[in-house]
Amino acid sequence: MTVVEKLAEYSAMTEQAMAEYLPAAEIPQGKISEAMAYSVNAGGKRLRPGLTLEFCRICGGDIKDALAFACAVEMVHTYSLIHDDLPCMDNDDFRRGKPTNHKVYGEAMATLAGDALLTLAFETLTKADLDPDTIVAAVIELSRAAGVSGMLGGQVLDLEGETRPYTEQEIKLTHNLKTGALFAAACKLGCLAAGASRRQMNAAEAFAKSMGYAFQLRDDVLDVIGDAAELGKATGHDENKQTIISVKGMEYCEQLILEHSEKAKNALEEGDFNDVGFLRELTDWLTSRKI
Amino acid sequence: MTVVEKLAEYSAMTEQAMAEYLPAAEIPQGKISEAMAYSVNAGGKRLRPGLTLEFCRICGGDIKDALAFACAVEMVHTYSLIHDDLPCMDNDDFRRGKPTNHKVYGEAMATLAGDALLTLAFETLTKADLDPDTIVAAVIELSRAAGVSGMLGGQVLDLEGETRPYTEQEIKLTHNLKTGALFAAACKLGCLAAGASRRQMNAAEAFAKSMGYAFQLRDDVLDVIGDAAELGKATGHDENKQTIISVKGMEYCEQLILEHSEKAKNALEEGDFNDVGFLRELTDWLTSRKI
Repeated sequence: MTVVEKLAEYSAMTEQAMAEYLPAAEIPQGKISEAMAYSVNAGGKRLRPGLTLEFCRICGGDIKDALAFACAVEMVHTYSLIHDDLPCMDNDDFRRGKPTNHKVYGEAMATLAGDALLTLAFETLTKADLDPDTIVAAVIELSRAAGVSGMLGGQVLDLEGETRPYTEQEIKLTHNLKTGALFAAACKLGCLAAGASRRQMNAAEAFAKSMGYAFQLRDDVLDVIGDAAELGKATGHDENKQTIISVKGMEYCEQLILEHSEKAKNALEEGDFNDVGFLRELTDWLTSRKI
Repeated sequence: MTVVEKLAEYSAMTEQAMAEYLPAAEIPQGKISEAMAYSVNAGGKRLRPGLTLEFCRICGGDIKDALAFACAVEMVHTYSLIHDDLPCMDNDDFRRGKPTNHKVYGEAMATLAGDALLTLAFETLTKADLDPDTIVAAVIELSRAAGVSGMLGGQVLDLEGETRPYTEQEIKLTHNLKTGALFAAACKLGCLAAGASRRQMNAAEAFAKSMGYAFQLRDDVLDVIGDAAELGKATGHDENKQTIISVKGMEYCEQLILEHSEKAKNALEEGDFNDVGFLRELTDWLTSRKI
């Protein structure tokens, strides 16, 4: 099975489970259910839930046990995209080739739909058929990854980076918080669902951080060289944003991607996992991807 | 001790605990910590955390055990105010006599600060020194109360009420979701922290729903007859919003407030609580308040 096929399999499982967790449309406030489903169903690689499910599998767990956690991570990711696209943030009109949430439902509803997905993510964690200790550990992991010391902190640094020149280290910190933290939570939630060891959790985190950085750098490269139609969103978007490319050049950035991609694969060897073949291939695929 | 003094005591306890949970300002992304603290520290009656602490007490629990839950509820309430005030929502410039969050920090940061408080609320629930079963029950309670079947659903109905005439029942549903659900969660989280019985949880919920409705109706009355300077926010705000007053008149609304205030007090008799004197007085005070 190729990387793309395996991801598609995980994606289908996630989408099936997701349909059960999303609120019904047949309620008086059903417009928000529609807005939530619109963005959740807008496609995407479903990379983060895929990581949750795969880490559960390679830690010896039953993938079904990780489905609620996988959906929760994807809800957090989707909410962050909805709010990120808002006029007061990046002001994007298209995402994954479709009009952004606020373009369809208006700013107020898009704000609320994002809020609702974030809220539902935590409710969804509690739906996992796992012991309360594990669920509490998942709530801690996801709330930290999504919060000020994680993704939201990264978004703040992203905003502030528009006002003054950043160093390479500051750009790296921004990426690590904005992307790496949720990647790490995705992987660790999979470990938690499988009752993994501390050693496995640490290896998963190290993998996620390096892979997340390489992934984000690749995103920056694609913003410069990518094709808007294939990416489904506007390119050249980072013109006003500082990236490793704007600070250190394209060649240096490509070198960093290779380096962190290797670091990610090496980290996988530290966790005594069942089989890391898919994750190795996924890393190579993601960090050399065209879309 | 008067109702106001007792509330002030709970408020001081909540604020002290809150300071420990809010993120530090001395981090690269510290601007968001400042924005979060600005709204959390903007005052207010601290009614919801007060309810959490009081229900813990009257169920025989130790108030200290309920402080994390109380802070989490107040964080959810504060986030909802920040997002509610945004230009794309109610577009309010003042809240509790101070400029609203986006007036001080800008729309983007206000959106993120709201997101961060919601996220932190769930992390804060896990800080309670209680068994994992209780913490999971609290996550379920708070996420439902804040989500589509609770507060956010109420906000959606509020938005939609601007586009077509509502019946009295629809206005009641809007209030119950927008205000009642988080009131109920505040009360029930106090019960949970004390290891209360199912009967006590049910009584707390019945109390909160009636009290929340009476409270919200009183808010509508104050919007018509209140003094903007005393309230710390603009009045006449509901001119374009449908209220029980606009649909059924002031006298009918005052009658409903009395009725639901009585229902709330009666519900308290159903829970075998230690001492419901404060909650009875609080109900009377809130539903006849001038600010």
